[in-house]
Amino acid sequence: MPTKNNPFRIRSKIWIENKEGQIIFGAGRLEILAAIVRNGSIHAAAKELKMSYRAVWGKLKDTEDRLGKPLLVRQIGGTSGGGSGLTDFAKKLLQTFADFQTDVENDISNLFEKSFSPRDL
Amino acid sequence: MPTKNNPFRIRSKIWIENKEGQIIFGAGRLEILAAIVRNGSIHAAAKELKMSYRAVWGKLKDTEDRLGKPLLVRQIGGTSGGGSGLTDFAKKLLQTFADFQTDVENDISNLFEKSFSPRDL
Repeated sequence: MPTKNNPFRIRSKIWIENKEGQIIFGAGRLEILAAIVRNGSIHAAAKELKMSYRAVWGKLKDTEDRLGKPLLVRQIGGTSGGGSGLTDFAKKLLQTFADFQTDVENDISNLFEKSFSPRDL
Repeated sequence: MPTKNNPFRIRSKIWIENKEGQIIFGAGRLEILAAIVRNGSIHAAAKELKMSYRAVWGKLKDTEDRLGKPLLVRQIGGTSGGGSGLTDFAKKLLQTFADFQTDVENDISNLFEKSFSPRDL
């Protein structure tokens, strides 16, 4: 956020990789999991995010394969005729990454204010 | 860096924007300035970075325009027949951003180790 001392703001992007340099989790996958919670299915989540079903499914599948842990549980029946929900593991991952991301953003903002004086920019 | 407790690693990208959401400075521009210092000219820097002269020059020009401060000084003569160097302002910006980036990376690594237990991934 721009402040009185600094009309500029610091932006950041963080993501988790495995040893092979493949993405495990990041802001995009966080959004996907949150959208599935909100919408109750991959299809509806993809629609909300303006992404293809295949793209959403592919990213989740990659994360599941790379971690060796399932993220989604199929929910059968109910008024909506079934859909997808998150495993306990995925719920925890969503929360942990969201908190981590907030902590990182706060830390970076503080460091930015400390590191750059108005004369530096 | 992967550790015993965590076979995954956190990656990050940071950049500075102005109020209009335009990029002011980031890792790419840092590399460009450093390459100009090493090579003594925009042309040689672009070659080293495998970028076009136009792309390098355009990014620097954008930063100069958005900050209202020059980054480059033309060096005339000498054995190499002239070239480009950094203004004092650009030298300071290069150093400040490089230090800031290192601090951010260390902070994020520490936060990552604290936030994620092996069970979380």
